[in-house]
Amino acid sequence: MLTFYYAPGTCALATHLALEYAGTPYEAVRLNFKEQQQRSPEYLRINPKGRVPALVTPQGVLTETPALLQYIAQTQPEAKLAPLDDPFQLAKMNAFNSYLCSTVHVAHAHGARGYRWTDDPQAIESMKKKVPQTMADSFELIETQMFEGPWVLGERFSTSDLYLYTLTRWLQGDQVDVQRFPKVAEHLARMDAQPQVQKVLAAQRA
Amino acid sequence: MLTFYYAPGTCALATHLALEYAGTPYEAVRLNFKEQQQRSPEYLRINPKGRVPALVTPQGVLTETPALLQYIAQTQPEAKLAPLDDPFQLAKMNAFNSYLCSTVHVAHAHGARGYRWTDDPQAIESMKKKVPQTMADSFELIETQMFEGPWVLGERFSTSDLYLYTLTRWLQGDQVDVQRFPKVAEHLARMDAQPQVQKVLAAQRA
Repeated sequence: MLTFYYAPGTCALATHLALEYAGTPYEAVRLNFKEQQQRSPEYLRINPKGRVPALVTPQGVLTETPALLQYIAQTQPEAKLAPLDDPFQLAKMNAFNSYLCSTVHVAHAHGARGYRWTDDPQAIESMKKKVPQTMADSFELIETQMFEGPWVLGERFSTSDLYLYTLTRWLQGDQVDVQRFPKVAEHLARMDAQPQVQKVLAAQRA
Repeated sequence: MLTFYYAPGTCALATHLALEYAGTPYEAVRLNFKEQQQRSPEYLRINPKGRVPALVTPQGVLTETPALLQYIAQTQPEAKLAPLDDPFQLAKMNAFNSYLCSTVHVAHAHGARGYRWTDDPQAIESMKKKVPQTMADSFELIETQMFEGPWVLGERFSTSDLYLYTLTRWLQGDQVDVQRFPKVAEHLARMDAQPQVQKVLAAQRA
């Protein structure tokens, strides 16, 4: 049995979706970020980074979205969440996920978590102002260079679709109109309609 | 034949080392960042992100360090650069690499590339001031929670050692004394002495 730690509105949604698509039994545990539960001594013993997602497996704890997505795909191969039989295509998936993790998520984080990189309140405000531009630039690159269609990797659905969906949902809050990116907008609508997505979003709201 | 694009002093060193350890034929092409070669039309056709590393394979171009490291390990399995037979250990490797990519590299980037996240010169200066702290915090977590020893994953050498070595080399320029982290400092010295490391560093200097 897997135990999965998440908070609503975070990137942990991608891993939550992967668990649901994989069809493997898991327990989802919600942390209350407003009460700083991710910084509690109990949780820091599970994940010393004080972040989500974290997945407790029979072999130990795993963190970091790209690593978790491939792990779930590899351990539940019948769910076909990754091109496991092709190292090049798998690297394409991981490159896409790494870009979301290290560039797109980081761009977004400068909106609400600028204090990670400066102690100056004015600098934090100036970072917030640039988020719409950095997020739009990232999604422009995804739309024009990285998204093969109809899924991220082309005909083959993969974890990159779950992760892209998770970060596309942040665009509105970051004051970027997703309709500027027709392929991404159509992907968002198609993912919104998937029963697994609706089930996980309902569970996170409940 | 693989063609590998890099610039000295960048995170591309990790992938360069992986190619050398893998023992596979490759051509290394150096870009001159001072002349903005990474932004030239020729290079943007190879990698629209305008960054390094990029690896041209017979199937197409790959980018993003964590994806490249696993790709090289998977396509040259006899080099034993990753725990390919154990999805959990492979996820540990990828989680470590993802942390370096999305947290440590990003912390470092606020020193020289703060313009990515703000247009305010004063904010850029304030970001520079915090780099020694964010880098030290990251390496404190690596030293106390993530480094198993003698290699990152324990007894097993992996791509995480190549990537950690690459980022540890940035500490001095970021005004962090590596001796604060005894395990990481010993790892740095051990990696410095490896013939493959010396060969690649000499090639990057030549």
